Order: sequence, then C-alpha cells, then structure tokens
Amino acid sequence: MGFTAGFIGLGSMGSPIAMNLIKKGVKLYVYNRTKDKTEPLVRQGAIPLSSPQDMFNYCDIVFSMVANDLALQQICLSENGLLNNSKKEAIHVSMSTISPMLCKELVEKHKEKNVYYVSCPVFGRPDAAENAKLAVCMAGDDLAKMKVKPLLEFVSQSIYDFGHHAENANTVKLSGNFLILNVIEALAEAFSYAKKSGVQIEDLLTFLTLTLFPSPVYKNYGTIISNQQYDPPGFKMDLGLKDINLLLRSADHLKIPLPLAGILHDRLMTGLAQGRENLDWSAIAMTQMEESGI
Amino acid sequence: MGFTAGFIGLGSMGSPIAMNLIKKGVKLYVYNRTKDKTEPLVRQGAIPLSSPQDMFNYCDIVFSMVANDLALQQICLSENGLLNNSKKEAIHVSMSTISPMLCKELVEKHKEKNVYYVSCPVFGRPDAAENAKLAVCMAGDDLAKMKVKPLLEFVSQSIYDFGHHAENANTVKLSGNFLILNVIEALAEAFSYAKKSGVQIEDLLTFLTLTLFPSPVYKNYGTIISNQQYDPPGFKMDLGLKDINLLLRSADHLKIPLPLAGILHDRLMTGLAQGRENLDWSAIAMTQMEESGI
Repeated sequence: MGFTAGFIGLGSMGSPIAMNLIKKGVKLYVYNRTKDKTEPLVRQGAIPLSSPQDMFNYCDIVFSMVANDLALQQICLSENGLLNNSKKEAIHVSMSTISPMLCKELVEKHKEKNVYYVSCPVFGRPDAAENAKLAVCMAGDDLAKMKVKPLLEFVSQSIYDFGHHAENANTVKLSGNFLILNVIEALAEAFSYAKKSGVQIEDLLTFLTLTLFPSPVYKNYGTIISNQQYDPPGFKMDLGLKDINLLLRSADHLKIPLPLAGILHDRLMTGLAQGRENLDWSAIAMTQMEESGI
Repeated sequence: MGFTAGFIGLGSMGSPIAMNLIKKGVKLYVYNRTKDKTEPLVRQGAIPLSSPQDMFNYCDIVFSMVANDLALQQICLSENGLLNNSKKEAIHVSMSTISPMLCKELVEKHKEKNVYYVSCPVFGRPDAAENAKLAVCMAGDDLAKMKVKPLLEFVSQSIYDFGHHAENANTVKLSGNFLILNVIEALAEAFSYAKKSGVQIEDLLTFLTLTLFPSPVYKNYGTIISNQQYDPPGFKMDLGLKDINLLLRSADHLKIPLPLAGILHDRLMTGLAQGRENLDWSAIAMTQMEESGI
C-alpha cells in the first residue's frame, strides 16, 4: 500500500526528512513559505502546494517542521492555514521544537476541527536527518500515533513514546537540548582548564569518551570544540538561544529555578553579541577559551 | 615471578584495591593511620607495618590512597614518612585525588630522595574498586610506569597514560570529577522540569540513556536521582566539595574562570549546610527538587 502525506517547512531539517519520505515511495505534497526550497523535492517527484490549507484536500497525514512558535501558529491558524480546511480524522504531525504551552493550545485548536495533533520533535543534526538516523520523541492520541509510526520509521532510527499528552514530547525535547548545551559548556570549561594546565585536549577527550562518557554528544561536540571548527554550523547559535528561552519561559511558567540554564542562556547571548550567530551553538566554547586567556 | 608491594591508606577505595592485589598473589605490606582497618587484609595475608617509613625496607613499589592533600603530605614528608627511609629506584604510586600543585611539589621531594613518584588517580566508586573495574589515569617517569603497570592491571579495567608530567593525571582526575558533578546537577534540573511538567522521570532517563547519553555516569546517577536513593553513599558530599575546591583553587592559580564549577560548589555547600554530609554527593539534586517545590 502506498502512502500519501504532506510536508510543511523545508529548512535544513525539513528538507532531508521530506526527501527520505519520497525515497521510501511516499507520494508527498510540499509547502514552504520561500518557494524555491521546494524545487529539489519537486525534482524528486514532490507536488508543490501554494498554501497549507490545501494539504488536507490531498492527504490524511501532514508533517510540519518550522522554525519557532510563531511560524507554527501561522501554519496552523492563519487564514490560509492547515486548520482552515481540515478533514475529519486527519493527523498533523508536528516535528518542530516549540513550547509545551503552544503545543497544549494547538492540541485544543486541532480537536475543535477534528484533527489529531501528534507531537514528534526530533533529536539529530541535519546529517542525521539525511541518513534517517533521527531519534523521535512522540506523544499524542494512540490511534493517531499508530497510523503515523510507519512513516516516522522511514526517517528515524528510533521512536520513543511519551504517552497521550502531546506536550510531554516537547518537554523532553527542551530537556534534551538543555542537557546537550550543558555538555558543550562543561567540556569548554574542562578543556580550558586542561589546556592551560598542560594536558592535551585530545588526550582528555579520548579518555572521557572511552570511559565516563561513551556518548555521541560528548564525542561530536568534544571534537568540534577540540578542533575549534564551528563552521559550518549543524545547529546555529540563534536557534540554540530560541530553545533555551523556550525552556526558561516554560520553567518560569511552572515555577522551576534552573541555575545552569541561566548560565547557558548568557553564554549564547554573549556569543550573539560577539557576532557569532552563523556559527554552531557550540561556539559558546570560544567565549570560555577567550575568558581563560587561551 | 611474585610481586611484593606496599599499600598506605585503607579507606573505602584503598581497602578493596589492596584486597585485589592480595587476591592476585601480591605479597602486600600495609599501613593505615587507624590500625583496625588493616585487620581484614591481614586476615588475607597482608603484613601490617607501624609506620610509612618502614615500607621501602620491604618493597620497591608502594601505593597510597588517602583522603586529601594534607594526609598525603604527612604520609610522604613527616618524620616517620615514606621518604624518611627511601631506597634508590623505589616507586611511589599515588592514587589519591589531590591538587596538581601538591603533585608537582611531591615529584621534586621524591626526586631528591631518588624515589619515582607516579600519579595514578582512579575513576570508579567502591563497587568498581571491588570488582577491579577502575579506570586509571597514569602519568610520570616512563620506566617507573612500566614497572607499575602489571600491578595496576590487577585492580583496574583500563589504564590511560597522560605522559611524563605526573600532575597531568591529577588535572584529568579533577576535570573528570567536575564533569560528573555537572551531569548530576544538569539531570537534577532537567528532572525537576520534566516532573513538574508531567513527564515521568523514568521515561526521560530511559530515553536519554538509549539515545544521547549511553554513558555509565548518566545511567548510574540518573537512577540514583530518579529513585532518590542517596544512602548508602558511593562518594560522600564532603569529598565532592574537597574535589571541586581542588579544581577551583587550581583554576584560580592558572587564572581560569569556571562558571559551572561555581554553581556546583554552591550546591555542595548548600547540601552540607543542610546536614547531608553523609549522603552521596548526588544528593545535591535534593536541593534542586526542593527549590522547585517538588
């Protein structure tokens, strides 16, 4: 049985995910605000649409992967938005990193239109998206999740179910990004201490990843920081700030102090003030090195 | 060929390490300030000595594992200390977590007495010591390291060489302990956020250790924090404070600001102020949970 689906948002993550769906034989309708981003996909057989509201005319499952809360609100709720022309039993699979608060709100708005909203934020940089190696956090209605799963398997290496409450997947995503950025800052501090003490950063990194931290996050970011290779960015600094701000606002809402997250926020802010918005978010390590006189 | 060695300092780490040496057939001379700690080892065949200065009468290689800088200074330099009766070509294998500054000083003092000082701080909690699963960071004179290595293999699962400068192994040890404590605090913050958001901590931990952080540190401490099981302690809070203070003093000396380490220091200080000195150092997570109203 062939699949038909829609995809909204063809940025550095959306494009490779959509491409993997096409490669797996999915008939894919695509929409992007900037039209020329649809072209590589159209060349592979995707069918371009001129607005999100046409999506549910052609398909029961629509994915979206956009930059932030505002973009997703517009995609869903604006005059030519996805929900303006909804279809009973249709499913919106939202892969963006957005606030749990907006997620909750969108679940309600979708319900009013008889559309299921499934939260599916993903972990992995663009190369992981290309290689269908993403880790997907999924939450929402059980039947909807079951229908969506075969398609998610085309773009990911693992799918984790966080239950009925769609916003829980977003909470996990924000927690994960916080933990990743925390590793970056901690490695930057440890490396600046080690280097100024006379220890080779490479030796320390090898030891850490063979013993205490045999983890892709430590390996990847440890290597980037050790090589000081923040360009090309896998995840840009301004997107990192967006995510830490989502976490901090969400934690404010719930009344949770997060001392480490406060430091990480300031590091990103410093990086942006220093004109590093086009570097990888791990370039916050440059600030630590500079402050240490290295 | 049988080995003969000495062991000074039979605390929660020293005792199981010494026991493993005996089990491997090493003829072991032992010394501990509190005498009754030698008894279980003597029952297994260890020979007790009444002061460190007798050690080099009987063996060419002496291990030490003591609580802090002051204890190691006394073991080495006091009137009845190890160096008071040294022997040419003898080796002192120092496993304690001490400051790189004291290490440098001790290397010189040992050299004056024609004794090699090899730094061998270890990673692993008492259960890892018992099971000979420690990770050893080794640095110092090449010939001395070569002689010591077969004995270290009896007590560890891996040995990493950080070169000629003995203090480099201590730098790595302090960096590692900083990174571990940082994980504890980061998990505590992420877990308090997740829990108050409605996500099961256990689900988040499973996801993290299967994807981003398949690391023993995340698994062990994530489980301890999730279960709130800080007793019995694997590594007590006051020892954690000692190590973070060693890092901060050493970083001060080198002029390196460490913002995360400052937060970790204050967390430990708060834990001690709250009377938690006999709990595991991961009990700093209790403070984060309490502050979050959980």
